[in-house]
Amino acid sequence: MSHNTFGHLFRVTTFGESHGPALGCVVDGCPPLIPLEAADIQAELDRRKPGQSRFTTQRREPDEVRILSGVFADDRTGGQQLTTGTPIALLIENTDQRSKDYSEIRDKYRPGHADYTYDVKYGIRDYRGGGRSSARETAARVAAGAIARKVLPAVTIRGALVQMGPHRIDRANWDWEEVSRNPFFCPDAKAAALFEDYLDGIRKDGSSVGAVIEIVAEGVPAGLGAPIYGKLDSELAAALMSINAVKGVEIGDGFAAAELRGEDNADQMRLGNQGAPHFLSNHAGGVLGGISSGQPVVCRFAVKPTSSILTPRETVTRYGADADVLTKGRHDPCVGIRAVPVGEAMVALVLADQFLRHRGQVGESARWPFDV
Amino acid sequence: MSHNTFGHLFRVTTFGESHGPALGCVVDGCPPLIPLEAADIQAELDRRKPGQSRFTTQRREPDEVRILSGVFADDRTGGQQLTTGTPIALLIENTDQRSKDYSEIRDKYRPGHADYTYDVKYGIRDYRGGGRSSARETAARVAAGAIARKVLPAVTIRGALVQMGPHRIDRANWDWEEVSRNPFFCPDAKAAALFEDYLDGIRKDGSSVGAVIEIVAEGVPAGLGAPIYGKLDSELAAALMSINAVKGVEIGDGFAAAELRGEDNADQMRLGNQGAPHFLSNHAGGVLGGISSGQPVVCRFAVKPTSSILTPRETVTRYGADADVLTKGRHDPCVGIRAVPVGEAMVALVLADQFLRHRGQVGESARWPFDV
Amino acid sequence: MSHNTFGHLFRVTTFGESHGPALGCVVDGCPPLIPLEAADIQAELDRRKPGQSRFTTQRREPDEVRILSGVFADDRTGGQQLTTGTPIALLIENTDQRSKDYSEIRDKYRPGHADYTYDVKYGIRDYRGGGRSSARETAARVAAGAIARKVLPAVTIRGALVQMGPHRIDRANWDWEEVSRNPFFCPDAKAAALFEDYLDGIRKDGSSVGAVIEIVAEGVPAGLGAPIYGKLDSELAAALMSINAVKGVEIGDGFAAAELRGEDNADQMRLGNQGAPHFLSNHAGGVLGGISSGQPVVCRFAVKPTSSILTPRETVTRYGADADVLTKGRHDPCVGIRAVPVGEAMVALVLADQFLRHRGQVGESARWPFDV
Amino acid sequence: MSHNTFGHLFRVTTFGESHGPALGCVVDGCPPLIPLEAADIQAELDRRKPGQSRFTTQRREPDEVRILSGVFADDRTGGQQLTTGTPIALLIENTDQRSKDYSEIRDKYRPGHADYTYDVKYGIRDYRGGGRSSARETAARVAAGAIARKVLPAVTIRGALVQMGPHRIDRANWDWEEVSRNPFFCPDAKAAALFEDYLDGIRKDGSSVGAVIEIVAEGVPAGLGAPIYGKLDSELAAALMSINAVKGVEIGDGFAAAELRGEDNADQMRLGNQGAPHFLSNHAGGVLGGISSGQPVVCRFAVKPTSSILTPRETVTRYGADADVLTKGRHDPCVGIRAVPVGEAMVALVLADQFLRHRGQVGESARWPFDV
Repeated sequence: MSHNTFGHLFRVTTFGESHGPALGCVVDGCPPLIPLEAADIQAELDRRKPGQSRFTTQRREPDEVRILSGVFADDRTGGQQLTTGTPIALLIENTDQRSKDYSEIRDKYRPGHADYTYDVKYGIRDYRGGGRSSARETAARVAAGAIARKVLPAVTIRGALVQMGPHRIDRANWDWEEVSRNPFFCPDAKAAALFEDYLDGIRKDGSSVGAVIEIVAEGVPAGLGAPIYGKLDSELAAALMSINAVKGVEIGDGFAAAELRGEDNADQMRLGNQGAPHFLSNHAGGVLGGISSGQPVVCRFAVKPTSSILTPRETVTRYGADADVLTKGRHDPCVGIRAVPVGEAMVALVLADQFLRHRGQVGESARWPFDV
Repeated sequence: MSHNTFGHLFRVTTFGESHGPALGCVVDGCPPLIPLEAADIQAELDRRKPGQSRFTTQRREPDEVRILSGVFADDRTGGQQLTTGTPIALLIENTDQRSKDYSEIRDKYRPGHADYTYDVKYGIRDYRGGGRSSARETAARVAAGAIARKVLPAVTIRGALVQMGPHRIDRANWDWEEVSRNPFFCPDAKAAALFEDYLDGIRKDGSSVGAVIEIVAEGVPAGLGAPIYGKLDSELAAALMSINAVKGVEIGDGFAAAELRGEDNADQMRLGNQGAPHFLSNHAGGVLGGISSGQPVVCRFAVKPTSSILTPRETVTRYGADADVLTKGRHDPCVGIRAVPVGEAMVALVLADQFLRHRGQVGESARWPFDV
Repeated sequence: MSHNTFGHLFRVTTFGESHGPALGCVVDGCPPLIPLEAADIQAELDRRKPGQSRFTTQRREPDEVRILSGVFADDRTGGQQLTTGTPIALLIENTDQRSKDYSEIRDKYRPGHADYTYDVKYGIRDYRGGGRSSARETAARVAAGAIARKVLPAVTIRGALVQMGPHRIDRANWDWEEVSRNPFFCPDAKAAALFEDYLDGIRKDGSSVGAVIEIVAEGVPAGLGAPIYGKLDSELAAALMSINAVKGVEIGDGFAAAELRGEDNADQMRLGNQGAPHFLSNHAGGVLGGISSGQPVVCRFAVKPTSSILTPRETVTRYGADADVLTKGRHDPCVGIRAVPVGEAMVALVLADQFLRHRGQVGESARWPFDV
Repeated sequence: MSHNTFGHLFRVTTFGESHGPALGCVVDGCPPLIPLEAADIQAELDRRKPGQSRFTTQRREPDEVRILSGVFADDRTGGQQLTTGTPIALLIENTDQRSKDYSEIRDKYRPGHADYTYDVKYGIRDYRGGGRSSARETAARVAAGAIARKVLPAVTIRGALVQMGPHRIDRANWDWEEVSRNPFFCPDAKAAALFEDYLDGIRKDGSSVGAVIEIVAEGVPAGLGAPIYGKLDSELAAALMSINAVKGVEIGDGFAAAELRGEDNADQMRLGNQGAPHFLSNHAGGVLGGISSGQPVVCRFAVKPTSSILTPRETVTRYGADADVLTKGRHDPCVGIRAVPVGEAMVALVLADQFLRHRGQVGESARWPFDV
């Protein structure tokens, strides 16, 4: 990971600002011969798209993706479009950059935003809609993640919002089917109803609130991860922490593990039906020593409340004066909601890259531990 | 970060197993003309060294470091040893690899350890003392971190243990001086006394317990961080999560930020005395949009309890049979304690690398935001 | 350099196929505050553009470039467009993909082309116009190179064709002004006249011929290069060898150095007027021990004859049958001609990246060797 | 390739100076389960070792290598030592650093050497024996190359000296067996006899001479190479150009290709006996479009004459004065000779890395082009 490129063998480079002509990415290193249509990517983009409920920004972006390279179809592929192993460029045009007066955010550093730090670092910034630091950049990640998923067709990666502000779901009610039935990606129908009331209040106050998202990847083969500094959990932490507004990441039990004793934390094993090891619990979240164990990979990340709120806040201007600022415009009262498909995409990118790196070093033949 | 190399411009490659002849690292890309003696590195190693109290493993390793390359002294440097800009190789010989019967851990996968996953990935592992997955590898990180600190002489990086098992320190008692006065790196004298009793009980039970460590870097210049995928917080998360047994990472308020409303989370600013912006709080932990703000960088990580305990646990063998295993030998009842200097080292490595990358892209001249 | 990304701090990722909808690149890591208009890039693209004389392919591509991100202008920049430090995406649409019957090259592997090797590697290829292996990809390099030049405004990078087939220029006639006056980028007016006749003959035969190109970079500061494996000459060699059809690379005297004795090869030094060292010759081509010496950096590369010719050649088909193939269509009789601006671009990319890496490790302050 | 690390998945980081305590390397990313003894590496080191004839430096270095990590043997491996997939650290102690007066080379920049450029870049250098820029560093490459060879057991990589000063071998006399029978790695017995006389004269004059080396890799599978910027030939060029004193690199016909017409250059194909394509010539040197074709990979590199000679040369001092310098001491009159095993090692490193990267992206199953 460096600058705007993510990954080693499966590499994604994103570009684009919130109010520039377009954003997009180049996916390099994708294996060849994978069926890939724009519609596959669009389906994921539509899950992240703004303006789908009153709980997300009212900006209207169709987020239509075009594939510019790296795929091919002819009569020999039966008309099916396949990846060719060359870079896949994806382009999403910005269409709803509302013309407005930017003087407020041009000169005043909005607290909690990257306005000040971009200016300090670069001496210049595209302040329109947050420029490069806008969450709009995550559309490119979701698009790339859709391709990453296809590298690992046997892996299922799903995300859910498990906490909004101080309100947590009841895990006993967890139902993956429920996630697509409410505007919060919430797996607990009861909690979703509560979230609706709660967030309506927040929204009407012109305020915002944080959230916690959980991502679960099932079907991850054992053996992925490149210790010591390319550990699977280390890269998941980097990937999730790189999402806008994320302030914390956990694998498995996460911070709760600190409170446990050794007897309670380590996941015991027994032989399963197929002669493969079977874990009796999953405190580890599917990763041991930086390598996947074959259990579901479970991670969580905390998203801070959207910093754009209607209450005036104290700040300074670019010219060195004290000032008050308040952020009008179209914003998500809980930016954590749309972070769910983004988190899924980041997990997919890490897994696809680690899978290729593992295959590179070790090959495809299973290292069945019991027959050496 | 890839395989066993960490960093982009300031790069550290570590090697070595717990019971092999030696471990060490190569630090590449270090700026030239920095005074560096082995004693500078040794001082940091001694803080991590095992066997310094009854609360860490009784393995006796002097952890003496030799510098094999990359430094030079002659009469023209006044006899002072300086870095030359070429790779600095550091070697630490293993001396206390007690000969023992390894048959227990050779064939049985210890729950919570990387035994099973290394075998699944590689088809082979050096099981003596945990091999490559032993926390002994972190000595090389601490050694490299000592050099990284010298790249940023104006930055102070300090760590403290803030939670042991369920017991948290009282932040009102925080005293950095206290950290070196107790065997826990604990900044709260009262809590340290409690930890002593508590951990004695754990130790006598042959059990273990987790911990939470906080690292604070003061004096970090504003502007470090390479968005989008080389964000400062993203790389800190990766660095800390790569430490053995770490299951969670937070920046600033971390998971607590999820519970806040926008008014309470964003750090307001006012002009300070020197005309520079002054933040009124530090919920962000010194990072906004992936770039340092000039505030102290604050991060925390959770360490799970040591998986080596005296209580027998259920597992499977390499040959596909159910078995019970218990781990005798010399172990840390709370491996989180010695993780404190390791966490400091990882933060130092991230900051040194980000500093060089920032200087590469943007140059040394300050981007004073108020005078453009 | 990996896959389709070139560079470490100044990084270029290209994408696109010859007959796909578009090609382009993402330039990441560019320093901020550099004036950059599309016209700056277009000027370089126009030098490489096909169809400008009867000696290059008759494909008509305007090669119009759009900047999609990474630049910003407002009243505070005086309307001048500046780089912002974020990724600069460049897009060039393909417009003259002539519809034709591809059955000949779809199934038959053209000798000297990458048809067979792409199929062996990936199991699929976009055969239209050579797909990804088409020299059309080099438009993206030239575009990126135009930005790289702006990172080093004091460096002048110029290229010239010094040999066509067996015919070499007379170096006594070298005149940089002449390069833009003939369709060959030839610095020797007399040789250019000869080349014209010679290449007309080749062209009428439906044949092709190779060439040698020399690139000279003047004003390169001393100190660039990252030994041992990031040596300046090593990266120049990689950069030039990565250009389509290149089979050899030389720095300074190149292969002729093998024939010299030590007395004749090493460049002696004397103090110059400004107290700086002055070299009495430049056999080294401006690089010593992988680091620039302050002398002009001189490199040459050999381009093989275009493999697309009208004479039938023996080959095999994708289906395992012997066949004859001849390549009709629009081709360069001497692809080396248009390689001149491409070579300049690659040298610019290497120098910009090395400059940023040098500044990262060592800083901006000159290491004046005489005052330590 | 960056700084002192070479490769992407199979990565080698070298360290050490000519007169420091030791040099060595860390080989990271090696596949597991490969038999590896120190003796395997020693055999290659012995071919490069100085002092084996009167035609190489008389420095007496045993170049004994120790493996510090990354291998394991127990009863279950039948006592055979295998790689484990973790970093393999190799250490070679310097033993014959003759104490001497360095004042001559400390202050005077030897023409043709890296003295001046290291000082300009870093402001300091270890001048003893050339420090980091000494050809002694190549011992670490040869050691790493010995491991790389084992990653590709079916590939045979051999090198030969084909030109010394102005004298070329007669290719009609090429006999690989002859290479180990003379002190020049020369495949032509007659030329070797000539070289002996010629080099004796050079040596007695206190002079030196350049050379050209050819490396041939047979058995390279088709499909290796990662276009566009990770092309196999591009990486070979970088690898060979990174060897001390190399000034030119060719693949296949190299610069001679520039003189050819299209009919003569492209290698025609016919179906071979096993139904696989068979090339009728190998002008391309086994690489098409940056991807291996299955033919032998053939490359050549030119080595300049050793810059250390007994004839006084004009130079400047570190303190800004004109001076004369002559280089006494133990030097190779033709450093190209010992570059032969170094060139082999670099080719082995490139191929091993490309093989792993190819396997990562595309997998192990052959992409047989005829049955899609």
